[in-house]
Amino acid sequence: MAINSTIEAAKLASLAARTLARLPAEQKRAALYAIARALAANADTIAQANAKDLEAARLLVNAGRMSPALLQRLALDASKVRGLVAGIEQVADMEDPVGRVTLATELDEGLRLERVTCPIGVIGVVFESRPDALPQIVALCLKSGNAVLLKGGSEAERSNRALWEVIQRAAIGSGIPAAAITLLETREDVEALLGADEYVDLIVPRGSNALVRHIQTHTSIPVLGHAEGVCHVYVDRSANLDRALAIAVDAKVQYPSACNAMETLLVHEEVASRFLPRVVSALQASGVEVRCDRRSIEEFGIAAAQATDEDWGTEYSGLVLSVRVVASLDEAIAHIGRYGSRHTEAIVTEDMAAFDRFFAEVDAAGVYLNASTRFADGFRYGFGAEVGVSTGKLHPRGPVGMDGLVTYKYKLVGNGHVVATYTGPRARRFTHRRLDH
Amino acid sequence: MAINSTIEAAKLASLAARTLARLPAEQKRAALYAIARALAANADTIAQANAKDLEAARLLVNAGRMSPALLQRLALDASKVRGLVAGIEQVADMEDPVGRVTLATELDEGLRLERVTCPIGVIGVVFESRPDALPQIVALCLKSGNAVLLKGGSEAERSNRALWEVIQRAAIGSGIPAAAITLLETREDVEALLGADEYVDLIVPRGSNALVRHIQTHTSIPVLGHAEGVCHVYVDRSANLDRALAIAVDAKVQYPSACNAMETLLVHEEVASRFLPRVVSALQASGVEVRCDRRSIEEFGIAAAQATDEDWGTEYSGLVLSVRVVASLDEAIAHIGRYGSRHTEAIVTEDMAAFDRFFAEVDAAGVYLNASTRFADGFRYGFGAEVGVSTGKLHPRGPVGMDGLVTYKYKLVGNGHVVATYTGPRARRFTHRRLDH
Repeated sequence: MAINSTIEAAKLASLAARTLARLPAEQKRAALYAIARALAANADTIAQANAKDLEAARLLVNAGRMSPALLQRLALDASKVRGLVAGIEQVADMEDPVGRVTLATELDEGLRLERVTCPIGVIGVVFESRPDALPQIVALCLKSGNAVLLKGGSEAERSNRALWEVIQRAAIGSGIPAAAITLLETREDVEALLGADEYVDLIVPRGSNALVRHIQTHTSIPVLGHAEGVCHVYVDRSANLDRALAIAVDAKVQYPSACNAMETLLVHEEVASRFLPRVVSALQASGVEVRCDRRSIEEFGIAAAQATDEDWGTEYSGLVLSVRVVASLDEAIAHIGRYGSRHTEAIVTEDMAAFDRFFAEVDAAGVYLNASTRFADGFRYGFGAEVGVSTGKLHPRGPVGMDGLVTYKYKLVGNGHVVATYTGPRARRFTHRRLDH
Repeated sequence: MAINSTIEAAKLASLAARTLARLPAEQKRAALYAIARALAANADTIAQANAKDLEAARLLVNAGRMSPALLQRLALDASKVRGLVAGIEQVADMEDPVGRVTLATELDEGLRLERVTCPIGVIGVVFESRPDALPQIVALCLKSGNAVLLKGGSEAERSNRALWEVIQRAAIGSGIPAAAITLLETREDVEALLGADEYVDLIVPRGSNALVRHIQTHTSIPVLGHAEGVCHVYVDRSANLDRALAIAVDAKVQYPSACNAMETLLVHEEVASRFLPRVVSALQASGVEVRCDRRSIEEFGIAAAQATDEDWGTEYSGLVLSVRVVASLDEAIAHIGRYGSRHTEAIVTEDMAAFDRFFAEVDAAGVYLNASTRFADGFRYGFGAEVGVSTGKLHPRGPVGMDGLVTYKYKLVGNGHVVATYTGPRARRFTHRRLDH
């Protein structure tokens, strides 16, 4: 980064954000297409930078200082770059999220109130390993009118710089201020970012639980994200057990390190004797280590290790699963309330009343009926991409696409209206008429 | 409070919240009507309790240990109670904010995603002096399906207890769990509340800047509110100056201690010679102490004290106003960006292009054209009442009525759908079709 100080970069970003906030939709769309074209044209340069990152990473893997799984996430060849291009064009073509009127009320003759979406301002994103996250994040931030400060993982340093150089050059050529897309490159930059509360409106950490926790506890800036994903699948007494089997296997096995993978399977006692042996053998056949409660073992004869209290709150992020038999829907809801992380929870049942209660009482960003928890993802939800997944209780929640990157302002338009007219013994009454918008 | 421990009360509230989350709209409406009737029937008892609070407060005022202004806010006679009743009935009759579908998408055949509003959970409200806030807060929380822990000011202790007893009894009689509406009565209760992050989802402080700051810095629970209200009125070069005068006087004088009162008046240099003398003499005639920048005094001959740098960031909460001449719309926007508190900002102009830029670039919960900043209020916005005003950048923002007390869950309904179907070389494509809702 050519800029000496991260705080200075954040300040410039906050000025750039003012410009971004009033860019016409068409200009943002054109800028994203220019970025997409530039990435396609420079796919080979980017792949070459990535090859150097991969070479350095392989040395670390061989020395036992990096997990081999990281290599796959780090890889960014020319064909993968062309895939990114399609993703950016998809975001470019989405409806502009800024300036939407979400409430309109006539307060009185000539006095009109609107709630209008607007950008959040400056967003700091700290992400690990996967360099393909960078163009996705930039596309979502730019389309939603936000300036962005990016810090990627050090193992992807050359890839991130190559991506950023191509993207920023194309953006500037489309009239976007240079400070709207800034790359941070050192650990010290991140610490400075966390302290830049005067200029930065939101921090999005994407990475390990440790990274998220560190950021949550070291900044007064709002943090969008989640540290843990302890997701459950509850197989109700009215479940279709074939569906339950397919869902349980998918939720655990399809991509076990994802935050939306299942960590605990809850089974109603009335179906346990029919379902438990089937699901446990299917999971074990897929390499899953199963840890069961005492009832599963003693009453239903499951051959597995016994789960400890610690298991119920653990995100394994791998091929381990805890299993528990519950006596009722209430017990399942209570278990999830106690151990769940408010991420994504699924019930398998044919009984809509059971789902209605589960949906109302389970507090999580996603509550599913007869579907795998693995669907909790911005692309699968149709958001184009995601900047992160939020388990916070205030907006935004769940996979966060562009809609989560805009907030709103109230717009009030009068022609000299004053409050004194509406107070005191001769107060004029408001009309409070809902308007179409 | 019969409950020994605040943490225990918060835990019970979180269990009650599960019940509230699934109450039918009609039952919540009926409970609010029952509460309204009970308050009307017990207006005299409540007024008697209030008379004792007033008596104690008068002793403090006479001893110089309490501001006389507090007495007016503390007063709650029988006729004021009957006014509260009408407010609760108004909230009861509003559309239920829970269960609204705000996004619906078909992901694939038989796989439907909805974003559905739901209660936040348990809300702790800490408010000062005005006991009429209590029934309003309870009405908004109950209608939005949230459990509430209430702590009022110690000077209103008897009034708050009388109100709470009547309200809770009526609520229980309508099938609302007792723990859904809990009164906290000591300062120690508040400290315990701030630490109950396992059970409490949101804290709403209503009161002095000092109270809000204390709470913001002593809890890890999200806080909804604002410490300061430094609101501006900017009189543009294209302003209708008669309107500007009426708006400036209303924004400063109509209720100067409110957070939405104007603290700084910005005047474009092209209209300063015509407008400044008029507005300053009108404000001074209303008892306002005016503090001007050097240009106002030296170039435009205003007889007033000179403002210091400290003035621009100060919320006077009284009849004091700072005034500054600016050379351009840009300078006004930059001033507000530097000193504003993101609460409510107004421009007076007949030039819609100037308003469009002001609206896009000023970062505040309310951005007004030709209207007084004093309109920033839940009742005036048509929300029935407000639990507070939020200057935070994530939802909710501005006066917070019921809509700010619900968040959403994503509901996903399938019939055995698994993610594996949508991955790999033979991946099935999502339809991502927007549905009517």
